[in-house]
Amino acid sequence: MQTSKFDLLTPALLVDLDRFESNIRKMQTTVSLAGKQLRPHAKAHKCVPIARRQLQAGAVGVCVATISEMDWMTAAGIGVLLTTPVASRMKTDQIAAAAKSGADIRAVVDHPDQAMMYQDSAARAGTSLQILIDLDIGDHRTGMPCDERAIALAHQIAASPNLKLIGVQAYSVSGSHTEGADERRSHSKRAIAQAVSVQKEMLAAGLDARILTGGSTGTWDIDTTIPEVTEIQAGSYPLMDAAYRRIIGSGFAPAMTVLTTVISTSHLDRVTVDAGYKAFATDRPFGPEAVGLEGVRWQWGGDEHGILHLENPSRPLRLGDQIEFIPPHCDPTVNLYERIYAMRGDRVEDIWPVKNIQR
Amino acid sequence: MQTSKFDLLTPALLVDLDRFESNIRKMQTTVSLAGKQLRPHAKAHKCVPIARRQLQAGAVGVCVATISEMDWMTAAGIGVLLTTPVASRMKTDQIAAAAKSGADIRAVVDHPDQAMMYQDSAARAGTSLQILIDLDIGDHRTGMPCDERAIALAHQIAASPNLKLIGVQAYSVSGSHTEGADERRSHSKRAIAQAVSVQKEMLAAGLDARILTGGSTGTWDIDTTIPEVTEIQAGSYPLMDAAYRRIIGSGFAPAMTVLTTVISTSHLDRVTVDAGYKAFATDRPFGPEAVGLEGVRWQWGGDEHGILHLENPSRPLRLGDQIEFIPPHCDPTVNLYERIYAMRGDRVEDIWPVKNIQR
Repeated sequence: MQTSKFDLLTPALLVDLDRFESNIRKMQTTVSLAGKQLRPHAKAHKCVPIARRQLQAGAVGVCVATISEMDWMTAAGIGVLLTTPVASRMKTDQIAAAAKSGADIRAVVDHPDQAMMYQDSAARAGTSLQILIDLDIGDHRTGMPCDERAIALAHQIAASPNLKLIGVQAYSVSGSHTEGADERRSHSKRAIAQAVSVQKEMLAAGLDARILTGGSTGTWDIDTTIPEVTEIQAGSYPLMDAAYRRIIGSGFAPAMTVLTTVISTSHLDRVTVDAGYKAFATDRPFGPEAVGLEGVRWQWGGDEHGILHLENPSRPLRLGDQIEFIPPHCDPTVNLYERIYAMRGDRVEDIWPVKNIQR
Repeated sequence: MQTSKFDLLTPALLVDLDRFESNIRKMQTTVSLAGKQLRPHAKAHKCVPIARRQLQAGAVGVCVATISEMDWMTAAGIGVLLTTPVASRMKTDQIAAAAKSGADIRAVVDHPDQAMMYQDSAARAGTSLQILIDLDIGDHRTGMPCDERAIALAHQIAASPNLKLIGVQAYSVSGSHTEGADERRSHSKRAIAQAVSVQKEMLAAGLDARILTGGSTGTWDIDTTIPEVTEIQAGSYPLMDAAYRRIIGSGFAPAMTVLTTVISTSHLDRVTVDAGYKAFATDRPFGPEAVGLEGVRWQWGGDEHGILHLENPSRPLRLGDQIEFIPPHCDPTVNLYERIYAMRGDRVEDIWPVKNIQR
């Protein structure tokens, strides 16, 4: 089978394997040389074949954000850290049941009631769960504030017979997305310092705080220089997107694109492609970036349409032409597809399933 | 089985059946009383059980925007109008093959080359295809401009041995989304008038233009009053969303919500729910609207998180509480889920599969 790009129905999600493999090598080498472990965030791809390649390169497991991601990864024998606090006994029961069946699972809590739910679920399942404290290091999104409440929560977990405290999680969305290398470095170091101080206090109290997990693609060259950080959670680096390119520049190559087709050419000043809100996540204030094509301006054209304004385009655009675009934001864009075409040049080398289920 | 809302893992997509059924009745009655046919757009739900209910109420078939939607609907025996021009011989081959196998399919073209592709595909498949001309009535997104080019295209289709010209399609995104009832009415009437003039010219030339299909939920009370319009394509009315509520008011009830759970409560001024960019489409400039809860302000919190700022909330929000939200935009939100929970009150009456595949 020699399926080529030109045989694909559009819109289609492509990954350029040369770039993808290079990105995976680069991150793993950087993290390993810093003496840390890489636990890539699988919410960025929801794709077991990608997780396997990250593990083959040296990752110790993956992070997941949802129960369904946990299920797919553990079913493939991959160890997971569920980075999102849950507040549903049904979910803690599922997590405990998975752990009981042998899955390698770590979970986080940011509230005493969550620790109680996990304790109850683990006890009822007859298992024990590895728990980290999710710390709020500035985003005020999830996480226990870095003060005496975090220490009290640590003591509660340590005293829970079916829970095993193993450390803290500290992730800063705002740090990862601060523009300007110096500003990002100082923001990120300041944020992580709060977690380091909790970790030190826990250790002084005789609590287990061996793990400090956090970091992201946006701070890959910052978190790896902080001695206390033990584990890096970066997720976007294998695929990359226009958002992180704007923040971190060319450190990682844009490996993921959406392949589209020009479907309407009735006007001299524009063409329409078959990709809109359902082909690209729209959570960034900018649109997709055309690949190998200058002099066009993107305009959202609806659920299934994108309009390209022609401002002296670098090549003529005809009905039926294919155009690739780098998505604004990779995670929620992958989430729109059920498969990724893994491309070696213009040839389809593999097709990877994506499990794009919420919950 | 008496599964209740409180047994569902979140985020989950719910449809309130009482509101949904009332919306379907109201639209069908309005369209039927106007002497027109209703062909609801299935891109809004991608869900065969919803399409079946629309047909049971009196719809003559559905509209679809993609090949995969066409496949699901025709596999269920439902006739379709593919409202999007395609410019790929692979796609016209698939459409012709489906027609050959007995599916009731109508397609649109907005370029002479598309008519040639359909003619070639239909001839090779040994079938004939019903074709409408997609007209550009002001959006400049797809559609042939309403001038002599449209008439020339009509003649080309009429002269194509395997194509059967049956009319024109005229949809105005800008008309559907114009705020203010009077402004929307005048915008929409002006837009449709261009299509009526093409239709008249086609009829005068002895061409078949029996169908003028178009319209939307935003213009449901306008298009139904235009004598020449024969078929209404509204899509959002069974589910509704915050965007159309802002435009058309209370004509149709918001029947679709996303059920979420409060997962973090570390701060007095906010709580975090387990729904973000992957639970709601983000293409509108406003966020989801909480149901039965005043005094909160939505802030996007990332892929899996939404932050609710508490500004004197009308009820206390505790860890583990469920909150429902009306999505900003229904079509691309449904597209994020693989199932819809059809609710009678707080009880799950049915579970409907959604086929959320692009292409």
